[in-house]
Amino acid sequence: MIFPATRLTLSGERFTAYYRLVADGAAEARSLARGICLEQTVEVSADLLADDDIRSQVVGRIEALEVVGPGCYDAEISYAVETTAGELTQLLNVVFGNSAMQPGIRVLRLDLPPSLVRQFKGPRFGRDGLRALLGVSDRPLLGTALKPMGLSAVDLADLAYQMALGGVDIIKEDHGLTDQPFAPFAERVPRCAEAVERANRQTGYRCLYAPNITAPVDRIFVRARQAKDWGAGGIMVAPGLAGWDTMRILAADDTLALPILSHPAWLGTFAISPELGVAHHVIFGQLPRLAGADATIFVNHGGRFAFTRDDCRDIVAAAEQPMGHLKPIFPIPAGGMTLDRLPEMAEFYGSEAVFLIAGGLYSHGPDLVESSRQFRRLLESTGSC
Amino acid sequence: MIFPATRLTLSGERFTAYYRLVADGAAEARSLARGICLEQTVEVSADLLADDDIRSQVVGRIEALEVVGPGCYDAEISYAVETTAGELTQLLNVVFGNSAMQPGIRVLRLDLPPSLVRQFKGPRFGRDGLRALLGVSDRPLLGTALKPMGLSAVDLADLAYQMALGGVDIIKEDHGLTDQPFAPFAERVPRCAEAVERANRQTGYRCLYAPNITAPVDRIFVRARQAKDWGAGGIMVAPGLAGWDTMRILAADDTLALPILSHPAWLGTFAISPELGVAHHVIFGQLPRLAGADATIFVNHGGRFAFTRDDCRDIVAAAEQPMGHLKPIFPIPAGGMTLDRLPEMAEFYGSEAVFLIAGGLYSHGPDLVESSRQFRRLLESTGSC
Repeated sequence: MIFPATRLTLSGERFTAYYRLVADGAAEARSLARGICLEQTVEVSADLLADDDIRSQVVGRIEALEVVGPGCYDAEISYAVETTAGELTQLLNVVFGNSAMQPGIRVLRLDLPPSLVRQFKGPRFGRDGLRALLGVSDRPLLGTALKPMGLSAVDLADLAYQMALGGVDIIKEDHGLTDQPFAPFAERVPRCAEAVERANRQTGYRCLYAPNITAPVDRIFVRARQAKDWGAGGIMVAPGLAGWDTMRILAADDTLALPILSHPAWLGTFAISPELGVAHHVIFGQLPRLAGADATIFVNHGGRFAFTRDDCRDIVAAAEQPMGHLKPIFPIPAGGMTLDRLPEMAEFYGSEAVFLIAGGLYSHGPDLVESSRQFRRLLESTGSC
Repeated sequence: MIFPATRLTLSGERFTAYYRLVADGAAEARSLARGICLEQTVEVSADLLADDDIRSQVVGRIEALEVVGPGCYDAEISYAVETTAGELTQLLNVVFGNSAMQPGIRVLRLDLPPSLVRQFKGPRFGRDGLRALLGVSDRPLLGTALKPMGLSAVDLADLAYQMALGGVDIIKEDHGLTDQPFAPFAERVPRCAEAVERANRQTGYRCLYAPNITAPVDRIFVRARQAKDWGAGGIMVAPGLAGWDTMRILAADDTLALPILSHPAWLGTFAISPELGVAHHVIFGQLPRLAGADATIFVNHGGRFAFTRDDCRDIVAAAEQPMGHLKPIFPIPAGGMTLDRLPEMAEFYGSEAVFLIAGGLYSHGPDLVESSRQFRRLLESTGSC
């Protein structure tokens, strides 16, 4: 053999990735699954490997393969935890590094043993921690987005003030607000934090302002620190833009210790086709949680995007299902929501969610304080159902 | 209006993104394009905006919209350069942050004015710089991949030695080799670098060893530095895993100054469906180049993946077309290549490419030195055609 036979000492612990395969018959499905086992690990054809531990332990293993519909198969493939080297980047790589370039393969969900999950600190606050910060124990939370890009820092702060005064629980920024000349980060964040704090003193509420700190890697950690210093109560990060591991580091930083909202920017492509990519459950649920987000923003069904009720249910499941020591996190459905839809959303999501209503709030009426009050009152009443 | 009318002082410079739209008629296509203009910038419906500079300057602008096939339209949309804040992360966000969550929209290519490109250093070496390092001026380059995961550092170094002795120009590592217990980074990289250097002293060639440094953000910069200190001639980074901006920083670091190979891991989903995502031209061509890669690895047509000849041509075009001050970079077609296909590859790509042949080299015969020599001889002869 060109590769020397190798003996390895492994823990025997494995993690599992579930794939949806599009294939013309069971034989083709099995061939596709075998391809994944090799492609995601050793990247050579099986006949080049000796009859050794690389072949038996390092190569992925088909644990189950079943037909789930016409031309449609679910494969359960396990990998030795050692293949990930305990790195989030390499975990993603083993799951879907190369196979993402092949059509007809979709990652449905991950099942990680506690020993692997322990490599990650996960959400610092989670649902309970965020509720404690906000002082809200028993109803869905009301979130909104500060916008639009182009407005001055003064004007954005004024909007934030009005919405905080009206009783919004979480004011996140649009993910498009970074450090544009219209409202530079160093001016916008202190002003908005001050405005929200001023409103909180008047209302007695604890509205949380979460600026968007998504930025180049040499600036994002600086901005996170500045956000904290300037009085922000949380931060928003788009892991698709800044990197999953960047979010993990921000979440794990004991000196920062701010709740993190995960934003789906740039990640939509993974989810929207049922025959490829990485399912909603993973990309908007399991991965943000593993990377330490305390809440995950996604687009609600029935809005201007294409997510279905099942997609949203799958995200909620990933946000709260047992996952080693990781705390449950909040789903934040967003996108084209209005006051009219709040009762339906409360029915669908229950009280363990943040309802993010931006356009629907801005367009509700001319008085932003009063509009915010109406949304909050409605949420308070649905929460007591 | 809920948002105050705003006057802005902008440069007037704009960049352009080209989108392929799937729509049922011209009216729907225009509506989809208008949606992108708003979604990617202000994220509010147009009727909430005053008749001001936000509406006229910040909102994206449809510059052209034409039918290109049944139910298929190409939209040219321009954005003020100021929307990007000069940040790579925010450039990606403006191009496709939210619209990636809508079906029927694909980013085809970007056209960036020199003022925007100047925000990025780009490739440090490019084609000429890499050729100078390798001492090869007039033929396609021969690359290979060190593998498989599971082999010890000693065995991997031995393989590297044999391939360098046989005349391979570039030995990159599999992107699955990170810091596993099988062959820890700190043992593997010094051993492999030494082995390649030893071979170079014997051959007089300048084979370049590029370890995979893709890693968590708090380790990748350390590994890049270690790779240099331990004698690596280049580094490989998977921007889909480590983040585009992480690659940009590595490329811009004057104290590092190593050629960078970009690996496509985790990015395949963007490219493989013609109706969504981000086209090969952008994701495997323009973005790696903008982020400073000196060469971009992708899967060749006709291999075990689904890329077509046109897809590969589009990547080559992005690697070499004028793009501000950015140097042309090498395309590195890879994936299931054999000796038999080399002449055809040389015909298709010409001499300005690195042909990455791994499985085909390992399986070519029992003597890896001799197999490498055969590949090199064949390339030298095609180069003189």
